[in-house]
Amino acid sequence: MPRWEPDARERLVVAALHLFNEQGYDETTVAQIVDRAGLTRSTFFRHFPDKRDVLAAGQETLSRLLTDGITAAPDDAGPLDAMAAGLRGAAGAMTPASRELGPRLQAVIAASAELQQRDQLKRVGLAAAAADALRARGVDRRTADLVAELGMLAFKEAYATWVAADDEQDFGALATRALEQLRVAAAALG
Amino acid sequence: MPRWEPDARERLVVAALHLFNEQGYDETTVAQIVDRAGLTRSTFFRHFPDKRDVLAAGQETLSRLLTDGITAAPDDAGPLDAMAAGLRGAAGAMTPASRELGPRLQAVIAASAELQQRDQLKRVGLAAAAADALRARGVDRRTADLVAELGMLAFKEAYATWVAADDEQDFGALATRALEQLRVAAAALG
Repeated sequence: MPRWEPDARERLVVAALHLFNEQGYDETTVAQIVDRAGLTRSTFFRHFPDKRDVLAAGQETLSRLLTDGITAAPDDAGPLDAMAAGLRGAAGAMTPASRELGPRLQAVIAASAELQQRDQLKRVGLAAAAADALRARGVDRRTADLVAELGMLAFKEAYATWVAADDEQDFGALATRALEQLRVAAAALG
Repeated sequence: MPRWEPDARERLVVAALHLFNEQGYDETTVAQIVDRAGLTRSTFFRHFPDKRDVLAAGQETLSRLLTDGITAAPDDAGPLDAMAAGLRGAAGAMTPASRELGPRLQAVIAASAELQQRDQLKRVGLAAAAADALRARGVDRRTADLVAELGMLAFKEAYATWVAADDEQDFGALATRALEQLRVAAAALG
């Protein structure tokens, strides 16, 4: 984010989210978003290629935090512990602002088939990035794919709990616990 | 498929796949597809809403076979055995024609970001359908989601082997074996 415009991106995201919520995603225009945010169209398009991309804001950051966490796990950490480290890294994207906007974001996504698809593709992208990071640690392909999927299920479960909780909870701890519960469920299958 | 037009749908799929492969998905028009298939535009649009939907042909059938297999598994089958039954059911969609067209289809998908996204969404949809069918058997939500993801990984692995094999292999057996290997990999995580 450029130094001379510290809040523009966040203001655009918040304005868009409120408008999507109030009047629907399809009915909201870029003109309305910039108007609500008190910014210009050119500022909008400096940050986002398209209206659709406003909600993808943070996707790259999240993916980077997740994979950096996996990569930085100790050499002797197993695949599941490395995945847990990635989820704790991803907690860096779970700010008070994103928690406050969470329910609104979920409602907007639930109301739009297009946004649901984008949300699903986002998870597929995160799973692929996590699997790549695990393979780079020497984890075999099958285990990497498996652990990445477990990680995504844990992420989803932890996020739902984190957004719905009355008090501020530690996302990393929630995700680590969810991953452990999934491991136990997987072990019980045999 | 209507009785009076037994092969039209399949001919359209084959023609589209050849054209996508030869000249690219984006460059191919519905007019070219119907021309190659020796059919009319109105026949095309009776079968498919859109060019994009030609490659989704069989998606509903596949989903139905998968979930029917899960549902029809014996009452005392555990979640993983029910998933295996679903994958063996899905083998009903793996015809000699779909095996012959498989490598071409994979090449077409690999060459288009849009088709890759549709393929990913297809898997997400299958996973959701499988998880629903497992929950309907009384499987708890976490285990249902977990086993559905294992099922999708097994499906993907089995499909890649099935398409690449020199001889005609039993898709259901391949998928059941892949699922068992994933179970072993999951059990080894703890």
